[in-house]
Amino acid sequence: MKILVVGASGTIGNAVTKELEKNHEVIRAGRNGADVSVDITSVESIKKMYEQVGKVDAVINAAGRAHFDAVTDMTPELNDVGIDSKLKGQVNLVLLGFDNMNDGGSFTLTTGVMMDDPIAKGASAALANGGVRAFVKAAAIEMPRGIRINSVSPNVLQESIHKFGTLFQGFDAVPVRRVVLAFEKSVFGLQTGQNFEVY
Amino acid sequence: MKILVVGASGTIGNAVTKELEKNHEVIRAGRNGADVSVDITSVESIKKMYEQVGKVDAVINAAGRAHFDAVTDMTPELNDVGIDSKLKGQVNLVLLGFDNMNDGGSFTLTTGVMMDDPIAKGASAALANGGVRAFVKAAAIEMPRGIRINSVSPNVLQESIHKFGTLFQGFDAVPVRRVVLAFEKSVFGLQTGQNFEVY
Repeated sequence: MKILVVGASGTIGNAVTKELEKNHEVIRAGRNGADVSVDITSVESIKKMYEQVGKVDAVINAAGRAHFDAVTDMTPELNDVGIDSKLKGQVNLVLLGFDNMNDGGSFTLTTGVMMDDPIAKGASAALANGGVRAFVKAAAIEMPRGIRINSVSPNVLQESIHKFGTLFQGFDAVPVRRVVLAFEKSVFGLQTGQNFEVY
Repeated sequence: MKILVVGASGTIGNAVTKELEKNHEVIRAGRNGADVSVDITSVESIKKMYEQVGKVDAVINAAGRAHFDAVTDMTPELNDVGIDSKLKGQVNLVLLGFDNMNDGGSFTLTTGVMMDDPIAKGASAALANGGVRAFVKAAAIEMPRGIRINSVSPNVLQESIHKFGTLFQGFDAVPVRRVVLAFEKSVFGLQTGQNFEVY
């Protein structure tokens, strides 16, 4: 398979890439993408990426930012960070990717545990995650040519929980290895419209 | 109570207003608002509305548009209709409304059944609904001064199912009266962070 991984340099994207490239052709994309450069907040940038990449059998997205702040300090502008990146950025990879997707291919996006198990300062990220999950579930029933779409919802990672201070206190952090498995289930399995929880 | 109803001229907003004004002071807002004019896609317009309205005990939103189309025909720009209106419009009513909300007051937003029971052409609306639901759940744990936040998720209405052709075929349409009850539960009850399903 030819697999495009967007956000390939992050903790999850890097782990997914390392596993998949054992048996597949992986194209690593990102803001400083090893193979292709892309800014998912820009429609033009996504279009350019697809032009460079050509046809693929799977698109995996592990990119997407959101602003973390108390909801009373969250302005519409700060909330837009997550909407433009984690929400619209991911969804636009799908809306703009149909022509590049081979029959029977798959899109796999990333959501996150905060939408199900809220944390302080996480409302904007939760919003983006919840939007992506609902889009995936609804879009799945309309996918053409046997194309599938799922999302993976990781808990906080053992590899990165230290970056968040006490925000995820009490969460049973998961190893990135388990998140990689969920992406493999999405790409190589047959399910569609699912949000694979790695909690 | 002093209750602001945004989208008061729609089927749901009108029914909510008629019921609540029996015992409460209701301010009707909307694009052609009877009392106050507001365009929820504009941050400036929301700010102006709150300046005119002053302090309230509850904000109910029944406004919000989304573009309905097959996901393969949905462009990023058409998808923005729902993101700007049904998603950001609703969330910005909260983010910009704290100073106007009395202690112990409540925000009640509107989602919809398509995020749980997808229909053709409904992926963009589902996205917006799912984003709002996740925001409500996460924001609830951070609300100051006893303020609560919920959403109401209506099924298609008996009063408006005829407008949608065959899109909701097989759905057990609900009377708007039941949706009004869910808004009353949100405003006059004590629950928070809930998405009250009227399915």
